[in-house]
Amino acid sequence: MSRERLNVQAPVHELIAARWSPRAFDARPVETEKLASCLEAARWAPSCYNDQPWRFLVADRHQEGEAWQRLFDCLSPGNQTWARRAPVLILACAATRFGHNGQPNRWAQYDTGQAMMSLVLQAIALGLAAHQMGGFDAGRVRQAFAIPDEYDLMSVAALGYPGDPAVLDEETRQRELASHQRKPLEEIAFAGRRGLGFMVPDSLGWKAKVGQSACPGTIRISIRTWLKPWSGLGSRAGGCSTWAPAPAPRRCPWPGGAFRWWPPMSLRPRWIGPGGWRSGKGWR
Amino acid sequence: MSRERLNVQAPVHELIAARWSPRAFDARPVETEKLASCLEAARWAPSCYNDQPWRFLVADRHQEGEAWQRLFDCLSPGNQTWARRAPVLILACAATRFGHNGQPNRWAQYDTGQAMMSLVLQAIALGLAAHQMGGFDAGRVRQAFAIPDEYDLMSVAALGYPGDPAVLDEETRQRELASHQRKPLEEIAFAGRRGLGFMVPDSLGWKAKVGQSACPGTIRISIRTWLKPWSGLGSRAGGCSTWAPAPAPRRCPWPGGAFRWWPPMSLRPRWIGPGGWRSGKGWR
Ligand SMILES: Cc1cc2nc3c(=O)[nH]c(=O)nc-3n(C[C@H](O)[C@H](O)[C@H](O)COP(=O)(O)O)c2cc1C
Ligand SMILES: Cc1cc2nc3c(=O)[nH]c(=O)nc-3n(C[C@H](O)[C@H](O)[C@H](O)COP(=O)(O)O)c2cc1C
Repeated sequence: MSRERLNVQAPVHELIAARWSPRAFDARPVETEKLASCLEAARWAPSCYNDQPWRFLVADRHQEGEAWQRLFDCLSPGNQTWARRAPVLILACAATRFGHNGQPNRWAQYDTGQAMMSLVLQAIALGLAAHQMGGFDAGRVRQAFAIPDEYDLMSVAALGYPGDPAVLDEETRQRELASHQRKPLEEIAFAGRRGLGFMVPDSLGWKAKVGQSACPGTIRISIRTWLKPWSGLGSRAGGCSTWAPAPAPRRCPWPGGAFRWWPPMSLRPRWIGPGGWRSGKGWR
Repeated sequence: MSRERLNVQAPVHELIAARWSPRAFDARPVETEKLASCLEAARWAPSCYNDQPWRFLVADRHQEGEAWQRLFDCLSPGNQTWARRAPVLILACAATRFGHNGQPNRWAQYDTGQAMMSLVLQAIALGLAAHQMGGFDAGRVRQAFAIPDEYDLMSVAALGYPGDPAVLDEETRQRELASHQRKPLEEIAFAGRRGLGFMVPDSLGWKAKVGQSACPGTIRISIRTWLKPWSGLGSRAGGCSTWAPAPAPRRCPWPGGAFRWWPPMSLRPRWIGPGGWRSGKGWR
């Protein structure tokens, strides 16, 4: 039942490590200032020709209750079961033609994805979380909000403060607490040519500590690694702070329980308990 | 000549504020461990059905010189003028069919954009910077690297340590130092319905300080704002740390010179000099 991020292969910034898509949201409204910051983060994303093809329709239940309901009604029944608790729904659209010449923009969706990722990470930075959905009736949304054909409707994000998984029905809670899965790095990144998986370099040693996290329901893992000398640069220390969901309280009470986790650049599991620093050496 | 981020409308996380697309890169190679972290950040991006449609071909000049050259040769001449200094080129592709059922994935490009944004922000966190390019011969890249048709070729990112703009030719340097432009928030975000621009809330007051930044050529701006009470939550203090490029040394020596900057949630310019905290009130 415990939610674990099992296969981190290299250190990542805590904002990126802390991001995930929750289904349980708190009833608490989202402050309009925080919403503004999320949208502002999207605004500064990069885009081809700086076209900024992203458009966001923000439906805040506590501000535009009617719009929120209209957007919610277009979600798939499966998404409605949990998204009904989200105080904010944000529709992301992509302008499929360049503003400067009206020609098709083949990066419109790609760039809108970049802007949405910015928005989501800013949400994490503010203690919020977002869960994007592709499961909605795009035709119905287009009609409900009179969105012209030149905009592609990409996703609806549920945004709010993460809530207690206890509010979820049994099946959804199981999914909420399942471990996070990803393809191994070697299957998505290639060194110079396709088929040649990008391998993370060996490390000389590591030091890890479990601590408290600002994000409810999670713990923070601080890691320092000593990396192999490479291309004459000598051995360097790499710092990293990452995150894992706190073990489910019933199964493995916190603090006190150990949890399983792969330190960066390792394919072998390590048990790191709460408390002081643990260290290791040459884990490959 | 000074590079200024003029129209920040709401506070954003410094990782997001610090991101931009430089043209001047340092000759210094990128450590493979840092490259691994950037790819790892991409790996943890969200995607529809967790399909993870992104694929990255990494061409590190110091590791796969031949592949780097092959990819570089496919860039547009305009991009070649500056990208030739980038130690790493990364090609981002999108798998256009779902892995689980072979059906078309209409979120493939969007999700690849999210992964690339993760990669770029992780690069920023490590003191690196990335500049994406759509200006490349996609057909030629496909052939040069034998990439199957079911992958869309989205962008080539130049990655490396930011360098001194002095290495650029005059025209490129002008672009490098130009201010960053974005559409106003009201044109990309709508409150409940299209046409109704999302407005950032009024603020009660602010306090700002200019400090040193870890990123070369930039300064850090710390801001605290006191926000209007809203929906019964009472007045709260919102913190933020953002970033601006350091004024060009010749025109406005640093430290000592003041620079123009809009504090968050303001449309009016403010001058904030180096040193202690400055404060203001009700700037709308
Ligand atoms: C474009 C997009 C569409 C998605 N659609 C849905 C959806 O309809 N319902 C749902 O529960 N999750 C949806 N997700 C969430 C993904 O399943 C989730 O991002 C993925 O499983 C990875 O998990 P994580 O975000 O918690 O890391 C979607 C995500 C994206 C990016
Ligand atoms: C998909 C994509 C393609 C781009 N293509 C190019 C390009 O071919 N040449 C270039 O100099 N910049 C290119 N850019 C960079 C944009 O011009 C830049 O992101 C935009 O002007 C915003 O500036 P900033 O990233 O510094 O904030 C591209 C960016 C993206 C996201």
